[in-house]
Amino acid sequence: MTQTLEDSPLYPLVNCRSMAYFGASNNLTAMGSLILSAQLATGFAGPIYPVHPTEDAVQGLKAYRSVADLPEVPDLALFVLPPRLVAETLAACGEKGIRRAVIVSGGFQEVGPEGAERQREIVAVAARYGIRFIGPNCIGVVNTHHRLNTALFPYDEKPGFIGLASQSGSFVAQMFNHLTRHAINFSTAFSVGNEANVDIVDCMEYLAADPRTKVIGLYIEGIRRGEAFVKAARAISPRKPIVAYYVGGSETGSRAGFSHTGAMAGPDAVYDGIFRQCGIIRARSVTELFDFCWVLGALPLPAGRRMVIQTHSGGPGAAAADHCGREGLDLPLLSPETVERLKPFLPHTASFGNPVDMTFARNQGDYFAAIPDVLLREPGADMLLLYILVPSLMIECSLEMMGLLPGDIARETDTLIETQTAALAALVGTHGKPVIGYTYRGIEEKFCRRLMEKGLPVFAGPERAARALTALVQYRKIRNRQDGSAMDEVGTGTT
Amino acid sequence: MTQTLEDSPLYPLVNCRSMAYFGASNNLTAMGSLILSAQLATGFAGPIYPVHPTEDAVQGLKAYRSVADLPEVPDLALFVLPPRLVAETLAACGEKGIRRAVIVSGGFQEVGPEGAERQREIVAVAARYGIRFIGPNCIGVVNTHHRLNTALFPYDEKPGFIGLASQSGSFVAQMFNHLTRHAINFSTAFSVGNEANVDIVDCMEYLAADPRTKVIGLYIEGIRRGEAFVKAARAISPRKPIVAYYVGGSETGSRAGFSHTGAMAGPDAVYDGIFRQCGIIRARSVTELFDFCWVLGALPLPAGRRMVIQTHSGGPGAAAADHCGREGLDLPLLSPETVERLKPFLPHTASFGNPVDMTFARNQGDYFAAIPDVLLREPGADMLLLYILVPSLMIECSLEMMGLLPGDIARETDTLIETQTAALAALVGTHGKPVIGYTYRGIEEKFCRRLMEKGLPVFAGPERAARALTALVQYRKIRNRQDGSAMDEVGTGTT
Repeated sequence: MTQTLEDSPLYPLVNCRSMAYFGASNNLTAMGSLILSAQLATGFAGPIYPVHPTEDAVQGLKAYRSVADLPEVPDLALFVLPPRLVAETLAACGEKGIRRAVIVSGGFQEVGPEGAERQREIVAVAARYGIRFIGPNCIGVVNTHHRLNTALFPYDEKPGFIGLASQSGSFVAQMFNHLTRHAINFSTAFSVGNEANVDIVDCMEYLAADPRTKVIGLYIEGIRRGEAFVKAARAISPRKPIVAYYVGGSETGSRAGFSHTGAMAGPDAVYDGIFRQCGIIRARSVTELFDFCWVLGALPLPAGRRMVIQTHSGGPGAAAADHCGREGLDLPLLSPETVERLKPFLPHTASFGNPVDMTFARNQGDYFAAIPDVLLREPGADMLLLYILVPSLMIECSLEMMGLLPGDIARETDTLIETQTAALAALVGTHGKPVIGYTYRGIEEKFCRRLMEKGLPVFAGPERAARALTALVQYRKIRNRQDGSAMDEVGTGTT
Repeated sequence: MTQTLEDSPLYPLVNCRSMAYFGASNNLTAMGSLILSAQLATGFAGPIYPVHPTEDAVQGLKAYRSVADLPEVPDLALFVLPPRLVAETLAACGEKGIRRAVIVSGGFQEVGPEGAERQREIVAVAARYGIRFIGPNCIGVVNTHHRLNTALFPYDEKPGFIGLASQSGSFVAQMFNHLTRHAINFSTAFSVGNEANVDIVDCMEYLAADPRTKVIGLYIEGIRRGEAFVKAARAISPRKPIVAYYVGGSETGSRAGFSHTGAMAGPDAVYDGIFRQCGIIRARSVTELFDFCWVLGALPLPAGRRMVIQTHSGGPGAAAADHCGREGLDLPLLSPETVERLKPFLPHTASFGNPVDMTFARNQGDYFAAIPDVLLREPGADMLLLYILVPSLMIECSLEMMGLLPGDIARETDTLIETQTAALAALVGTHGKPVIGYTYRGIEEKFCRRLMEKGLPVFAGPERAARALTALVQYRKIRNRQDGSAMDEVGTGTT
């Protein structure tokens, strides 16, 4: 197990100060060129050295005929070359003194015997020079805190806390938009490809040691080093949550995974057992993988599985209760003290049950401040799930009815949204209990967006919210094991 | 069972030519006023008569002191009055000759014995005058083809094909935005409230007879007339698909449903049995309820459960295969003929398995036209699931690389998107097989939006897409029963 981040063999790769690029050119439709231009757009601080047999400059950077000509020994070499050229170029890098590489090129293990032979070659070259490399057949690594981005797409967002190790490059490169829409981000994300040298276990250990990573996500098509995986995960999970989506779970999925990276997928139940044993929280989809990482990285853990649902509409409250019930969460009745404290804020038509349904609201402001504050003080509740309906539109309408001018309405709406979202988001810290929102509208709308930017997750639908809350409860139990509590089975909705 | 639409007792209500409003005023924060202003914004064509004890005009409409003063007998009376005033006002409406009503007011059965007594009163008044009414404790009805909207929110979208009968008003009024974002809409939607007179069975029968309704959605907290429900649903389901989300399914959900509309929720397994028996497709969430209605109304039915997944990225293909496999869908291998036909369009790195993974694309245009056309000609495949990644951004980048000017890029991008989405959407009709898209990006982006507007559903994530495909397969089996095929059990993923 890696003790400090700097000890990790991946540290000089993920935090490289300089890079050599093989396969980038001025032909901007080639994959190597796209990767370089994405990296340039991301704004890496250190020098980048394109190596090109004929060009003097590539995308505005001085190009070098060969790696031997480079003015320094870069920390990292990136390969987007045809597969037959990789071994000899890697050897030249080794001669130069380069000790870390990302091999994006495909055409190895995943394409059959000839490719497998080529893969053995590069493994041998790497061993000869002590090179550690990611790939081949990957998109490499994204370190948002270092503006390192070897993926195909440019990326310019606030750094985040989700560490990902993925056996598919798509779930690094093609999730940028998904993460941005949810106001979250990777800390560091690895696309491990064929795992010829660095594998998913190495990446997991790096992420465990990385203080900027609060939660580790894994996209798994098949684990190669089973024993090492279990050992590492068991050591990490009590300290830092691990969430995994295993795609080889069904016969159909298994066939797809096989042709994709050449990893042998095991049966679903085996992986299920491994995950339980290791304290890994299992996600059922890629969406859920990121949902779980989001709440585990953003929110405090609940003490138990007792929750309160707050709504102003019956159906959405009932649906939330249904989903929470199915996930094994408890909806206790409120204590008499809490009911008393709620009374000044709720109309007589309100339901003081659980869900708490305030019906047609007296005061929109109370809904996001005083009422959740009372509910979070309830000693019998460990977390709060809150229905959110179109507040910005409602605020605008109210202000219009109050006779404000259009210009003032926009400004006042913005102020009110800021005040209300700040009040709600602050309650998480005040009470040390998780709060999650859900809506049937688009989460891109201003009110939800602001909440998410302030660290409070909002989900499209109570079904995703309920599952995410369950992940928090599950991780609380994994933590408790370590604290010497009874070691009960970790599973969705069980206690 | 209703034979024609005009025979339905609900016809004069849903297609009313004139309305009386009780409870609307010039105080725009009151619920009755909001409902009237939403109706006005929706643009109902016929006359609306506000009845108000003191005002001469309400929201710009001439107001009347009492219902007796109205210049004609309106087809419909809408009540947002305090509950104690409803019975006498309803009687006055009866005297006037009004025979249809929507009673939005709460404070009846759902609030206890006193309310139950008030409810018995209005039922008796209605019986005396032969009035049929929806409610109380509801938001009434939305008929998008008639610009009728008694819900709280204004609504101005293209009419649609989803008929909804809901025991929660929220899932009518608060879903407008959800539907709009998916480029779908209600045909007619009912919020049935306490079902004191018209109930969910009556609404289902109306929707069955309505030619503008292609699919019926039900949100159920508890069915009151079990036998009538089963009889009606069994008769309707072979002709028109019915999808239901039953919220009382878990103990927790059951408690919430109870306090909400006073319906007694039965255990989950009972409802599951009823749904199977009736040929009703069961949704697991509100999101899924609308997803299922969407594909059932928009797409042809597949002949079987054999599907092809088309992707250019391994991970998203594998994840789709995993979800489809878990849902019991088959991913057959392509026939040699199909493989031959694909070859001109795919690079040598492509996988000709299933998922078909074209990897780094040669020609973006082929991906949405020639390739799916070949795959839909495959006799061994009943439907197609297609991964969609950010094409508008990719198109813009390609055009930029080709040296186009910024103004031309925008126009050319738009033209290409139009061409490509039109080509793909047209294939559904050409082949008579369902095609569904999935993406991890926002479906609000232009490419997906255009596809949806052309009638091709695109889902956020393959998990939702796989479930939706399963609903199509399930409904094919329900239809087959009627055609004299073996009556096998209808359930997710079974054949």
